[in-house]
Amino acid sequence: VHPVFADLPVTVFEEMSGLARELGAINLGQGFPDDQGPIALRRKAGQALIEGSNQYPPMRGLPDLRRAVAGHYGRTQGLDLDPDREIIVTSGATEALAAAFLSLISPGDEVLLFQPLYDAYLPMVRRAGGIPRLVRLTPPHWRFDRAMLEAALSERTKLVVLNSPLNPAGVVMADEDLALLAEFCVRFDVTAVCDEVWEAVVFDGRVHKSLMAFPGMRERTVKIGSAGKLFGMTGWKVGFLCAAPPLAKALAGAHQFLTFTTPPNLQEAVAFGLDQPGDWFEAMPAGLQRSRDRLATGLREAGFSVLDSGGTYFLNIDLAASGIDEPDRAFALRTVREHGVATIPVSAFYAQDPVTSVLRLCFAKGDDVLDAAVERLARAK
Amino acid sequence: VHPVFADLPVTVFEEMSGLARELGAINLGQGFPDDQGPIALRRKAGQALIEGSNQYPPMRGLPDLRRAVAGHYGRTQGLDLDPDREIIVTSGATEALAAAFLSLISPGDEVLLFQPLYDAYLPMVRRAGGIPRLVRLTPPHWRFDRAMLEAALSERTKLVVLNSPLNPAGVVMADEDLALLAEFCVRFDVTAVCDEVWEAVVFDGRVHKSLMAFPGMRERTVKIGSAGKLFGMTGWKVGFLCAAPPLAKALAGAHQFLTFTTPPNLQEAVAFGLDQPGDWFEAMPAGLQRSRDRLATGLREAGFSVLDSGGTYFLNIDLAASGIDEPDRAFALRTVREHGVATIPVSAFYAQDPVTSVLRLCFAKGDDVLDAAVERLARAK
Ligand SMILES: CSCCC(=O)C(=O)O
Ligand SMILES: CSCCC(=O)C(=O)O
Repeated sequence: VHPVFADLPVTVFEEMSGLARELGAINLGQGFPDDQGPIALRRKAGQALIEGSNQYPPMRGLPDLRRAVAGHYGRTQGLDLDPDREIIVTSGATEALAAAFLSLISPGDEVLLFQPLYDAYLPMVRRAGGIPRLVRLTPPHWRFDRAMLEAALSERTKLVVLNSPLNPAGVVMADEDLALLAEFCVRFDVTAVCDEVWEAVVFDGRVHKSLMAFPGMRERTVKIGSAGKLFGMTGWKVGFLCAAPPLAKALAGAHQFLTFTTPPNLQEAVAFGLDQPGDWFEAMPAGLQRSRDRLATGLREAGFSVLDSGGTYFLNIDLAASGIDEPDRAFALRTVREHGVATIPVSAFYAQDPVTSVLRLCFAKGDDVLDAAVERLARAK
Repeated sequence: VHPVFADLPVTVFEEMSGLARELGAINLGQGFPDDQGPIALRRKAGQALIEGSNQYPPMRGLPDLRRAVAGHYGRTQGLDLDPDREIIVTSGATEALAAAFLSLISPGDEVLLFQPLYDAYLPMVRRAGGIPRLVRLTPPHWRFDRAMLEAALSERTKLVVLNSPLNPAGVVMADEDLALLAEFCVRFDVTAVCDEVWEAVVFDGRVHKSLMAFPGMRERTVKIGSAGKLFGMTGWKVGFLCAAPPLAKALAGAHQFLTFTTPPNLQEAVAFGLDQPGDWFEAMPAGLQRSRDRLATGLREAGFSVLDSGGTYFLNIDLAASGIDEPDRAFALRTVREHGVATIPVSAFYAQDPVTSVLRLCFAKGDDVLDAAVERLARAK
């Protein structure tokens, strides 16, 4: 057994969802909506099962979906992507990340990552042979600056992994910060793997700008998207890799041997959703923003210190600032066991030197669920 | 870019399917049925999209599907698998293979593989850091023997990769050969990764026996299955990893970071298909056997020398024995371009010292398609 997988603990998401199921707790842990997603897409996928092909689609994905992805990113982010040479459909963003790490990292390459980091990054970077360099972001603003990048990047850096909007922090990174990172990528000839799965889930009039759109980044960015997150159906596992042709060729090679392809009926439905979104991309974030506000207001009234959330399904409580001395993990375990609300301790997103006083809550839930959670959390305080 | 993915050619499957599409040729290349699969499963999957969950299922797969897989392998192969600790649902057998290689190989480990080999094996074994040792099988019987294993296995061998029934050869390996391989695995404490995706597609009363069922192999076998192949829907991309708990734990770690999970509606439908198969697992191979016979008879009448096929969707023509001196690849390219039939040159399945006089044809097609293909191939001779 390879050392990376020898003693891997169960992820905090599975652990907390497992506890929630077992204890019948409200699950504000793992990030998924309690709504089942747009019925038109689900019907379309069902229709394609009956009327369409159930056999291998092309390895890079259905041409219709690749065209739809290019169209969507053209309209929403001003990107000009060639569907045939620059877009690859994957079995979720997780596969897209794995393909990027396995194809773009060679043993010994240094890879810059920001903490807090999503649990899939570090094991796969290590398995690919990369040497992680971690930049530590902290609440309440979770920003990096020039000095942090100067200290972490060098000629040995081959890859930067960026997640914006950032899970678990809920921050949409500022244009000036992205521009700064782009400047470093260009200076050191670094490729950026940009996990932008939350791109459509941004609030208060914010607009997601891909790192790919910054000067010098078009040719050196791997942009990763997720239909599951775009449409709030996390089980669909349809993702996208977007990159200039030479990068896309290497990515396609890895994709080919990781999953080869992705169910055609789901691809067809996602293409339909991107081509005919109606008001989905306004209504979806607007609804989530209302949920965020409902949960934030309730928590503040209950005496919690709530950090800003500009995007994602998540908001965070600063436990210390809420007068809670318990470390986040202990608080989270006590809360699910004694008060019936599952949450995620943000310390789980750090590999070193964790921030231990922040708790992540998923607000992509119905009002009644959020209200009940607030009531229970108030008792846990 | 990692060297494995730097100059990867397009696979022969994509190349030939691409040519077939472009030229409007009959496609007997890439292995997929022209039938769309059991309508009951497709309806069930469609129903689950509307009535079931579209959010993350558990990382190891729906409990119902894991139970159904255990039941199926219990009934059909006499295996006794624990659904909770020994079965992991993957996004197709390709992902299952990648998970096995990435989690079980450490850099420098020797890995035994048999040629002809499926295109995903070697790049992923290399990417995992394995050092391939190749055993070369040849027509007409494609068998290995004790001397070949003695020469290839040693204390340095950590993994053996076996595909039986064997694509492209169409052979179901003999029990005595499997027993011999098991003996070597036990002697050298080697883990076997068994790609058994063709297990249900065997003919003439043959019965598939998993390498896992041989003495000493229960604890050291990773058995890989494919719902796409079990039910003839290659686009579904639902696979299974079966292994004893310590192996399964490592495999689950890799799966978690390769795709995390697989669409729940397809999982539900596969569970339904395994629980209530009706006569599917008799009727499906019987139908394919008739197709095999129709194609073989036609080809023999046209003067081709046809090799035995005991399983898979494939039969092979021995070009040299058919009086054709042209190498397989040249013949295949000429045949698709000039005569409108796409096939697969078996030399593409060799990394070294290729057999160059065998052509693979997929017979999982309607009678009219097979008849038309025979007519065209007769002209190419
Ligand atoms: C793959 S389980 C984790 C889902 C998620 O994006 C999150 O909760 O952060
Ligand atoms: C993944 S494309 C190849 C499909 C197949 O199993 C074959 O044709 O051998």
